[in-house]
Amino acid sequence: MIVVMRASATARDIDAVLRRLEEYQLKGHLSRGEERTIIGVVGASIPPTLREELELLEGVQEAVRITRPYKLTAREFHPEDTVVDVRGLKVGGSSCVVIAGPCAVESEDQILTTARAAREAGAAMLRGGAFKPRSSPYTFRGLGEQGLRLLALAREETGLPIVTEVMTPVDVELVARYADVLQIGARNMQNYQLLEEVGRTGMPVLLKRGLSATIEEWLLSAEYVIAQGNPNVILCERGIRTFETATRNTMDLNAVALTKRRSHLPVIADPSHGTGKWYLVPPLALASLAAGADGLIIEIHPDPDRAKSDGGQSLTLENFAALMPRLAAVANTLGKKIG
Amino acid sequence: MIVVMRASATARDIDAVLRRLEEYQLKGHLSRGEERTIIGVVGASIPPTLREELELLEGVQEAVRITRPYKLTAREFHPEDTVVDVRGLKVGGSSCVVIAGPCAVESEDQILTTARAAREAGAAMLRGGAFKPRSSPYTFRGLGEQGLRLLALAREETGLPIVTEVMTPVDVELVARYADVLQIGARNMQNYQLLEEVGRTGMPVLLKRGLSATIEEWLLSAEYVIAQGNPNVILCERGIRTFETATRNTMDLNAVALTKRRSHLPVIADPSHGTGKWYLVPPLALASLAAGADGLIIEIHPDPDRAKSDGGQSLTLENFAALMPRLAAVANTLGKKIG
Amino acid sequence: MIVVMRASATARDIDAVLRRLEEYQLKGHLSRGEERTIIGVVGASIPPTLREELELLEGVQEAVRITRPYKLTAREFHPEDTVVDVRGLKVGGSSCVVIAGPCAVESEDQILTTARAAREAGAAMLRGGAFKPRSSPYTFRGLGEQGLRLLALAREETGLPIVTEVMTPVDVELVARYADVLQIGARNMQNYQLLEEVGRTGMPVLLKRGLSATIEEWLLSAEYVIAQGNPNVILCERGIRTFETATRNTMDLNAVALTKRRSHLPVIADPSHGTGKWYLVPPLALASLAAGADGLIIEIHPDPDRAKSDGGQSLTLENFAALMPRLAAVANTLGKKIG
Amino acid sequence: MIVVMRASATARDIDAVLRRLEEYQLKGHLSRGEERTIIGVVGASIPPTLREELELLEGVQEAVRITRPYKLTAREFHPEDTVVDVRGLKVGGSSCVVIAGPCAVESEDQILTTARAAREAGAAMLRGGAFKPRSSPYTFRGLGEQGLRLLALAREETGLPIVTEVMTPVDVELVARYADVLQIGARNMQNYQLLEEVGRTGMPVLLKRGLSATIEEWLLSAEYVIAQGNPNVILCERGIRTFETATRNTMDLNAVALTKRRSHLPVIADPSHGTGKWYLVPPLALASLAAGADGLIIEIHPDPDRAKSDGGQSLTLENFAALMPRLAAVANTLGKKIG
Repeated sequence: MIVVMRASATARDIDAVLRRLEEYQLKGHLSRGEERTIIGVVGASIPPTLREELELLEGVQEAVRITRPYKLTAREFHPEDTVVDVRGLKVGGSSCVVIAGPCAVESEDQILTTARAAREAGAAMLRGGAFKPRSSPYTFRGLGEQGLRLLALAREETGLPIVTEVMTPVDVELVARYADVLQIGARNMQNYQLLEEVGRTGMPVLLKRGLSATIEEWLLSAEYVIAQGNPNVILCERGIRTFETATRNTMDLNAVALTKRRSHLPVIADPSHGTGKWYLVPPLALASLAAGADGLIIEIHPDPDRAKSDGGQSLTLENFAALMPRLAAVANTLGKKIG
Repeated sequence: MIVVMRASATARDIDAVLRRLEEYQLKGHLSRGEERTIIGVVGASIPPTLREELELLEGVQEAVRITRPYKLTAREFHPEDTVVDVRGLKVGGSSCVVIAGPCAVESEDQILTTARAAREAGAAMLRGGAFKPRSSPYTFRGLGEQGLRLLALAREETGLPIVTEVMTPVDVELVARYADVLQIGARNMQNYQLLEEVGRTGMPVLLKRGLSATIEEWLLSAEYVIAQGNPNVILCERGIRTFETATRNTMDLNAVALTKRRSHLPVIADPSHGTGKWYLVPPLALASLAAGADGLIIEIHPDPDRAKSDGGQSLTLENFAALMPRLAAVANTLGKKIG
Repeated sequence: MIVVMRASATARDIDAVLRRLEEYQLKGHLSRGEERTIIGVVGASIPPTLREELELLEGVQEAVRITRPYKLTAREFHPEDTVVDVRGLKVGGSSCVVIAGPCAVESEDQILTTARAAREAGAAMLRGGAFKPRSSPYTFRGLGEQGLRLLALAREETGLPIVTEVMTPVDVELVARYADVLQIGARNMQNYQLLEEVGRTGMPVLLKRGLSATIEEWLLSAEYVIAQGNPNVILCERGIRTFETATRNTMDLNAVALTKRRSHLPVIADPSHGTGKWYLVPPLALASLAAGADGLIIEIHPDPDRAKSDGGQSLTLENFAALMPRLAAVANTLGKKIG
Repeated sequence: MIVVMRASATARDIDAVLRRLEEYQLKGHLSRGEERTIIGVVGASIPPTLREELELLEGVQEAVRITRPYKLTAREFHPEDTVVDVRGLKVGGSSCVVIAGPCAVESEDQILTTARAAREAGAAMLRGGAFKPRSSPYTFRGLGEQGLRLLALAREETGLPIVTEVMTPVDVELVARYADVLQIGARNMQNYQLLEEVGRTGMPVLLKRGLSATIEEWLLSAEYVIAQGNPNVILCERGIRTFETATRNTMDLNAVALTKRRSHLPVIADPSHGTGKWYLVPPLALASLAAGADGLIIEIHPDPDRAKSDGGQSLTLENFAALMPRLAAVANTLGKKIG
């Protein structure tokens, strides 16, 4: 941390900063310029609130943090890629995983049909919501445990591991009994009790970026999970909220590329929520891989116009099957494989 | 709802829309223009997913919702202002309530000193966090139940009702035993299980707007609480996330004025989080009242530069005392009273 | 400026930074911490591109600017408020100026009726567009010079000084012949040739904030005008673009309060564009004054539902007259006067 | 357009709407529902301000536009792709054009070295700024006409057509004498006089999307150019402003895919400005092509850390050469060719 003093700061002001640093076993290194003095803060561990605290002292213009606030997720401290193992399937590294399935599990027929088509087309995992967060209290909120049982049935049939959302700490144990990957939705990215609870399971966690979360906040949320001793975090970019209303969200592929650089965790992309329109899913799925994503999560449905949730952004099973070889071709140019 | 057909839509396309409407006991009213046909949807109850469903049908260009998706919070169906009663104190109507206190409860001395100063200056309620949501897992997260006990002690001493945050459904019962108003933080605005749980208590709920929540989403979250039979919701604007980084958030006072018009619920403002800088709190507190807010929630601290959380946006007790008569003067010009 | 070296930076990397600084007659002040070295940059004048340049050098993690890039607009270098004189009328200081008028000048009758009503209600200046920037090429774009003549006629009749927009450098001379204040619209906030051209006139300039301009960029645009030797800049907050679509823009009253602190220039607010809805204009006008604005610019029209532009955000003459005493009451609580 | 009446609207209110429509030679088609009446507006040409006008009438809840406000740029009215011809080179269709060059022309040596390297690596056109818009008045603003002459020299040497920015209407004639493509920068996307002036030249125009412009506004700006009889518009996505500050802007590849669908104009992408960091340029360049962009514009520089402008986002000539075959590989998977 660096403390920038005002041009008008007195020797007493500077002293007060140095004494405050000493209270925290930190040292201040003075750099006197022509206009103002700058204090470099040196020491083992800088408390997270120090910046604010120093900025309130007399004569301080600004305190600037110079290291990132996350550690466990930072590539700086863990240079090799983390590869998350899901029932033997690797997420991260040289393969691109494709997760497909309906927004919500609706019936045995729907989920089995979809799962079979997903496997046939080459998907590696099955997604499907049993507990659905919905903006309005008047919409379909999922089948609950019955949905989980149907997902397990589909896994039995197809061998595809299951990704499904858990929304509240008390449900973690139940969902963990069925799921292979616990999904934390965008609205819950900063639900810290939930993050710690899924952290404690040790299971793979798919952590969606919040609608208006910065990359730094997203990585800090991953830090909550890893701090519980669970390094199996898969990050998922799913679009952010901007002024543009022609699409549901704005896919932030800068974030995919930058997060791959700043963190060792695998990063996948969700072009279904990221665009909100089924006809934009193929171009953005291709673009996500090209930007370096370690995989995709895509909504598909045997009959999108009858879907109980998010039909408008779901691919038909045919369109999904047609997309897969195109994804493989792009992955191939990057030296990666779909699977 | 109105269904706009494409210029190229065929008679069969139009028929398919009409038949789909019939499945939901709805009628379609045709309006044939020179270029295209428009179908007005008429009927008792339109399913929330109908829009998406129709837009996927052949020949449909767009389906446009023409009524708002919230009911219980809408002024249209409840023209008079809701006034929430907190231990005899009225929130809403012709008074402006000022809630003051530290971001986090830190010690008995800190909370008692603050509570006494708040009461003396004319505040009507005491705020203070016992459970704190924090972006980083490495920061102070509150005293928990011990914090609640200290708040209760401060209430005993000063008579001020208590506003405090609850972060997760399992804590609702505990927090409800101490608090007078249950606060739902911005990060939890769409934590639906939590909303329903506080709804079930029947207690006053202070619902902060999410960082990137639209006014419509905010009112839909209030709807979750009211749908549990609990009409005692106080909305709180606390700044939204925008591109501007010179302030922590952007206070949206348009939202205060518009929400007062669209909903019957009381709306208060939080200039501390809304600005993130203590020296912007007074002008924005005044502005919030002038925009029509039913009250304010303000962070104050006896020693902001030693605060364990959010010191930079807390007023000193002296600055708060100096602000109160200025608030009263502005309230007075609107025919309202501080209290 | 401070240069933060990576933990892995070598002595040679540090040397390279120091040598680069010397090329610009700057000195580097080293501060060696346990983890990394920090270099304070000391010298008379730091080139604006130095930060980027240094960040590209080997071993540099980050270069942090610690002073603001604007000078002439900064309060730090000019502590007293600037008061702009418009035909003897003072903008800034202890008065709150109210500028009122139609979005566009449409006819002699319209502008005279409006001007008379504005004066009677107590407005200090008349606004009206003769040249209108419009998103679509198919909408009314103003009467041009004929509009300017009608404004001059209205000034003759009522004595109210005229504020009107100029959109392109070649029109500056023409508009300057009629106007008392040259308005730079939000879309032109970074039209640098235009800024310099109005700077050269020496006339008062009303500079609207761009739709997505940061406060810093806004002040840098003011700097373009002042750098031509013209200190008569009035800043105008008119709403920024955010994700919220329930209002046309989001009034940023944080920006009003913060800009008053960072700069010596007067700051006024435009609640008509800031909200886009006539019924939100009164609460936000009151709020703007309470937040510290030095004045308001408000759209009024004798017959808003026949207006050729922005009718939906215009007050009727009656509603404007009813608003003025309420504005005066709020100004009064701040020790200011409307006029 | 559809007019939605309030539930409380009277027969007189409805009549007033119908009469107002008649004034514009439009017909209203009534659709009476159980709760409210809806009026479909039918007629040849709906004035752009009608929506606002109707919403101000008594009893009207909302007027909803159902057609897009742009025509000449819309694919609906021009289904085949527009291919822009630049000295025989085709932009749009089945090829992906790569435009490369420095942010600013700095010297003969710099531009010639860069141009030769660009051609060798396979770029199709040369970019370079002679007139530079800069936020601060204290930074390098380009060489002016001397820069244009150097660009012409580089074209002579390499045969690469030139893309360069024009910032103000009076410069159009000068810049047009040297350039092959006139670039309109993001800050000038709504500089309407400038759009019309470049429209009148009939030359190819590269129109960058404004920092906070919606797709609709962007297409309306293209409409200004085409309305002058000049269909040679190339759209360019270059990142939008969002809350995320870890990257300079947020590349909006949703916009690339959606604009290709809504309009017949070619759309290229600028990953240099879109990310602001040279190491993010390759992944986002690849992603842009995968999303369907018709080409790229990329900043390259022989010595980025000495660049006078935007060095931090420029690729070295080596990195650019290494990127080209990777771009070709992705283009190939889409059945396109780089060139």
